Amino acid sequence: MTMERPIIPSRLRGERVTLAHGGGGKAMRDLIEEIFTGVFQPPGTEDQARLTAQALAEPGAQLAFTTDSFVVSPPVFPGGDIGKIAVCGTINDLAVGGAKPLWMSAAFIIEEGCEFELLRRIVASMQAEAEKAGVRIVTGDTKVVGRGAADKVFVTTSGVGVIPPGRDLQAGNIRPGDVALVNGVLGDHGATILAARGDMALSTDIQSDCQSLNALVEAVLHAAPNARAARDATRGGLASALNEMAETAGVAIEIDEIALPLRPEVKGVCEVLGLDPLYLANEGTLVVFVPEAEAEAALHAMRDTEAGRGAARIGLAKPGPAGRVTMRTAFGGQRLVDTLVGEQLPRIC
Amino acid sequence: MTMERPIIPSRLRGERVTLAHGGGGKAMRDLIEEIFTGVFQPPGTEDQARLTAQALAEPGAQLAFTTDSFVVSPPVFPGGDIGKIAVCGTINDLAVGGAKPLWMSAAFIIEEGCEFELLRRIVASMQAEAEKAGVRIVTGDTKVVGRGAADKVFVTTSGVGVIPPGRDLQAGNIRPGDVALVNGVLGDHGATILAARGDMALSTDIQSDCQSLNALVEAVLHAAPNARAARDATRGGLASALNEMAETAGVAIEIDEIALPLRPEVKGVCEVLGLDPLYLANEGTLVVFVPEAEAEAALHAMRDTEAGRGAARIGLAKPGPAGRVTMRTAFGGQRLVDTLVGEQLPRIC
Repeated sequence: MTMERPIIPSRLRGERVTLAHGGGGKAMRDLIEEIFTGVFQPPGTEDQARLTAQALAEPGAQLAFTTDSFVVSPPVFPGGDIGKIAVCGTINDLAVGGAKPLWMSAAFIIEEGCEFELLRRIVASMQAEAEKAGVRIVTGDTKVVGRGAADKVFVTTSGVGVIPPGRDLQAGNIRPGDVALVNGVLGDHGATILAARGDMALSTDIQSDCQSLNALVEAVLHAAPNARAARDATRGGLASALNEMAETAGVAIEIDEIALPLRPEVKGVCEVLGLDPLYLANEGTLVVFVPEAEAEAALHAMRDTEAGRGAARIGLAKPGPAGRVTMRTAFGGQRLVDTLVGEQLPRIC
Repeated sequence: MTMERPIIPSRLRGERVTLAHGGGGKAMRDLIEEIFTGVFQPPGTEDQARLTAQALAEPGAQLAFTTDSFVVSPPVFPGGDIGKIAVCGTINDLAVGGAKPLWMSAAFIIEEGCEFELLRRIVASMQAEAEKAGVRIVTGDTKVVGRGAADKVFVTTSGVGVIPPGRDLQAGNIRPGDVALVNGVLGDHGATILAARGDMALSTDIQSDCQSLNALVEAVLHAAPNARAARDATRGGLASALNEMAETAGVAIEIDEIALPLRPEVKGVCEVLGLDPLYLANEGTLVVFVPEAEAEAALHAMRDTEAGRGAARIGLAKPGPAGRVTMRTAFGGQRLVDTLVGEQLPRIC
């Protein structure tokens, strides 16, 4: 979609961001034009995007609006970087509510001394992922703070999308008997970040599952028009997503340990570190509840998409006790899957 | 507009944010519900706002979308705090493009150890300012980073508004002969932050001009329907806003030193520190270009609003040289008002 860009000699001096790049003058303009707007190509030159979309004017259509800050450490990891995660995360927040993502904003808080090279990589990832998902990055901002006042770079993205008339995906719709599906293996993102931190001396081939889920959600909705609710199981993992859904819907949820798609390497990392994969963060994992009658169709539709190859049926909603999530273990027992109190791992996204 | 809220015993333990408040579990939910969503009262419980606005469906209406990160240091200063500045800044970005602001998102990056009290103050400021401007804060996010990985709290706001059909405020519309107006005194925000940093040992009564400009812009557009373009003169001050407008429009701009509304205290701070008030940041300063025939009407309309009491005519657009901004000095000379290269002051907003 982007045109080949002529190679223009860089006006950025040196290799790193200085405080001067945040001051509102020429240096800031050079940074913004060369690193950011030159790649994102937002419409117009005003500090504001002006947009029209036929879909928004349709009677009954709703505008969906979401935001997330990303502070993942390290900013580059196997399978992605903070830019890719920022775009995917915002697209996924929109998609799980049934919205078709249209536009995004991107705001950068940059630490003095951050390498231009890192910013270029992040921006390229963002643009590539946005193009893949059919979304445009239309407005943005940069701030520079002194050394030690931030950690390299933080990215905040907001997204605007449209929910077509008649769509109503929300946790409150889940009823006893509904089936829980996931699109693939769990915990890859969390395990990858743990390993990438280095201080664990873990060497694995695991990659973050960081990916956009909008095409997958559209496929599910096509096959299962009565789908009830969807979530992307990020911070706090599958366990937190299920607990929040059970509570909102006032149902119990029971999952099956042997049905959970888990990579042996992720199981291994969890065993070594005493972690529970149910609580590991994901960045491309969809949990969706559908009526029993549409479960098989939804599962097949998921498996036909790139993001849903490993789709599995993992459990179902039960009448009660409301808000309770349990797991039938591989040994035939039952255990409570509670909400975490604190964190397993800070700065996971 | 908000209802009285019953006093509920706090579930937050201690007085400061810990890493556990960012982990996706119960502690995070308590933080979010008690400090953020309890005050903002966004619609629904999903991680996404779902919105409808008649105005967006009007034929010819455009959606305006903008974002800004705020990293101002100190986070609380005379006349405002980082929360007020975040809401005003985003409202103003929308307003100067002719948009009526509707909805905002708010994302917080919080340093471990940040006091709950500071967050409560920031959130209260945001909600008060949003209500005053008729905008709703409908979605948000929180991230917690370790001590030293951020400086207390950074706030990123995005805004969505609607540009009514037929409105076209943009710098490219400015023509030679158009008149430049500002709404009041210049440089108060920049001078306030400088004094508030403490390390300058300056004691002044100056307050930040931090305020929402949407009502003011509507008043100008009512009185001067052919208004060409508007800007809020933030980072880089009036000088940077004028340079960017002159360049985009391909005109020269000449301003009059004796016409510039400046507080003696701000002049004093600038003299002591060797700063130029033209480059000092503002957070509630509007620059607007209108045709000569509508200038008096616009000026009177501005003076009738709270934010425009000190409105003044400060200069005009000339045929060329394109992009050049000059100032007639009090002594009858002329000086170039160039774009800054670096910063006067980091972390001003």
